[in-house]
Amino acid sequence: MLIVDIVKKHEPITSEEIAAKLNITRAALRPDLSILTMAGILEARPRVGYFYAGKNPKGLISEKIRSIKVSEIKAVPVVIREETSVYDAIVTLFLEDVGTLFVVQEDGSLCGVVSRKDLLKIAIGNADIKQVPVSVVMTRMPNLVTVTLDESAYDAARKIVEHQVDALPVIRPKEVDGKQKYEVVGKVTKTTITKLFVELGKD
Amino acid sequence: MLIVDIVKKHEPITSEEIAAKLNITRAALRPDLSILTMAGILEARPRVGYFYAGKNPKGLISEKIRSIKVSEIKAVPVVIREETSVYDAIVTLFLEDVGTLFVVQEDGSLCGVVSRKDLLKIAIGNADIKQVPVSVVMTRMPNLVTVTLDESAYDAARKIVEHQVDALPVIRPKEVDGKQKYEVVGKVTKTTITKLFVELGKD
Repeated sequence: MLIVDIVKKHEPITSEEIAAKLNITRAALRPDLSILTMAGILEARPRVGYFYAGKNPKGLISEKIRSIKVSEIKAVPVVIREETSVYDAIVTLFLEDVGTLFVVQEDGSLCGVVSRKDLLKIAIGNADIKQVPVSVVMTRMPNLVTVTLDESAYDAARKIVEHQVDALPVIRPKEVDGKQKYEVVGKVTKTTITKLFVELGKD
Repeated sequence: MLIVDIVKKHEPITSEEIAAKLNITRAALRPDLSILTMAGILEARPRVGYFYAGKNPKGLISEKIRSIKVSEIKAVPVVIREETSVYDAIVTLFLEDVGTLFVVQEDGSLCGVVSRKDLLKIAIGNADIKQVPVSVVMTRMPNLVTVTLDESAYDAARKIVEHQVDALPVIRPKEVDGKQKYEVVGKVTKTTITKLFVELGKD
């Protein structure tokens, strides 16, 4: 479409300039411009001119995915203490039907993450898994990949893919005895993202 | 916007009918209709009338997600034979760094799926995992949740969520000795969906 193409190429552009390019009067152009503006294809800014505002599908999808916050999608984390035995951790994993457990200290602050993979590795070794605490097999702070409530679903999914982990703890900073610690306020997992994907795909 | 609202409400509607509703002539309406049609907001079908064609972001996202085929996103499946021991299956899981193994018969046809969860459950039991074959712990045909190449990414994600599984085998039917069997030609996992989500979120 001619007008839209001109605006795309020359934005910001005034109605006088568009009319000149089309070799028509401003009066003849006015109805077209007002329809295109009302339809959301062009955007008019007073004393500046017209901008192209039409979004392509790809841009809209990316914008939507980046606008969803971790706080809107986070799931409930299952938490264990660092003294818990590997055996008890595995039992908790099955009882709660989750793939990842978050490990906390006495004051409730996050100190580690233990996955099905970590537990499977030790379970086939020769260790007595009723004696070994999860703190021996967990991934430990500060090596954890985490996410905060105000990051986006896209940020969380990108971290999961880049760091090849199944789950991220959603953390909130807190100070304990003058030290910087983190509270676990949720989790985002591959399941969370898959559920969100299904939600977005619904009619 | 008045014209668009009329079309939305009464589609399909002819230009005569729209002009009558607005109490203007067809000639006065024509430029507006042609702009709206060229802009993709209305769709004109000869001898039928005008339809509303404008898509909202939600509709576009859902349409896009449903248009992506399993054949475009499937990952490479790791396959083992049903006689493989649980111990060797776990070793394969770690070597290949996957969460699910697909179990095949001698003729290569799919007979089961074994997950990290299945393997962890048997690993903490009292069984000798070097003697027990995976066929004892796997989920078996016909209880498998599967997907085909021409289904959509949305279909696959929905099955993963509904059936609470980590991975789906992508199957293709084949006939062996007059029996209906299935070849494993790929997999779709929560990781596949999470990667696709990141891809869609990219600028």
